[in-house]
Amino acid sequence: MKGPESRRDILRTAARLFQERGYDATSMQDIASALNFSKAALYHHFESKEEILQQIMGYGMDIFEERVVEAVKAIPDPEQRLRACIALHIGLVLSGHDREITVVLHENRTLPHESGRAINARKKNYVVFLADLISQVQASRGVRTPAVHPQPAAFALLGMINWMYQWYRAEGNLSEADIVRQYTAVFFQGAISK
Amino acid sequence: MKGPESRRDILRTAARLFQERGYDATSMQDIASALNFSKAALYHHFESKEEILQQIMGYGMDIFEERVVEAVKAIPDPEQRLRACIALHIGLVLSGHDREITVVLHENRTLPHESGRAINARKKNYVVFLADLISQVQASRGVRTPAVHPQPAAFALLGMINWMYQWYRAEGNLSEADIVRQYTAVFFQGAISK
Repeated sequence: MKGPESRRDILRTAARLFQERGYDATSMQDIASALNFSKAALYHHFESKEEILQQIMGYGMDIFEERVVEAVKAIPDPEQRLRACIALHIGLVLSGHDREITVVLHENRTLPHESGRAINARKKNYVVFLADLISQVQASRGVRTPAVHPQPAAFALLGMINWMYQWYRAEGNLSEADIVRQYTAVFFQGAISK
Repeated sequence: MKGPESRRDILRTAARLFQERGYDATSMQDIASALNFSKAALYHHFESKEEILQQIMGYGMDIFEERVVEAVKAIPDPEQRLRACIALHIGLVLSGHDREITVVLHENRTLPHESGRAINARKKNYVVFLADLISQVQASRGVRTPAVHPQPAAFALLGMINWMYQWYRAEGNLSEADIVRQYTAVFFQGAISK
């Protein structure tokens, strides 16, 4: 196994182990064993467990930026852009594939300073992008003094969506489309109205 | 140090260490050292690290039920009850005191089966309570076919609030009162309107 494909496989396997057992409780030996690698072969690809975590997070942010941010940028109407953003972000959190993304969202305390800063800067960029988009939607509806400021609105939306992995089960009553429709409704009109 | 006070101190210290370093990376020796206890003295109070985690979570749920659920039960109007619930839950997440609560919310994967089930049942009870309350508020406003069903609405609200510890800084621009007002607005009328 060589090249970028095997590196991605290592990242996926390591991310799964980090989720199941926690980052600290997972050793390089555990990761190697799960891949049927020797420890030496694993060290050939990655210098340390920290490097693996950092790469997982970077890869997770790549996926997020590509499938959410880049995917909506060309939509001219701000409200349609925001609606697409919500749907794509939910889709990413609910998809079984590339679950590494959830590690990105929940393990950032463990990262060493330098690489932690780089990931946090990318997350912050997304909050700025989202808050700016919300502000455009408020303006496009002629709302000059919104009850909710764009930044806390962005955090509320991120909380709603990122928390889903805690309770959502694909085999339950709610399809992804149901969730997208209802969460979009919460954000645009609140949870009470018809 | 004996009696319930010292047990609570142990739980608080252990909870802080679990948050800072992760549950797996924290040893009984670490907890004992942080308290200036011998390991033997710590084992006098708690049989294992798992027992400590379980007690933290139980204590966290006690606090939550006492300060949120019990505190609002006597409010007759459902909408006022829900608004009080949101304010008290936010207050609990933002208060520096009794931060153990956040461990309850975010570490449940680590609990062994039996005690994990007991905690999860209490969390589930709260979701049922909240969904029922939301449904009463929808009914009290005469909304017969709400755009958002009570259960996903409850999860959206929990996500918004429980996610706050990820970004909220007491020294930032937003006071607790600002957050309560704006998050309540998101939930009742959405994030766009004035």
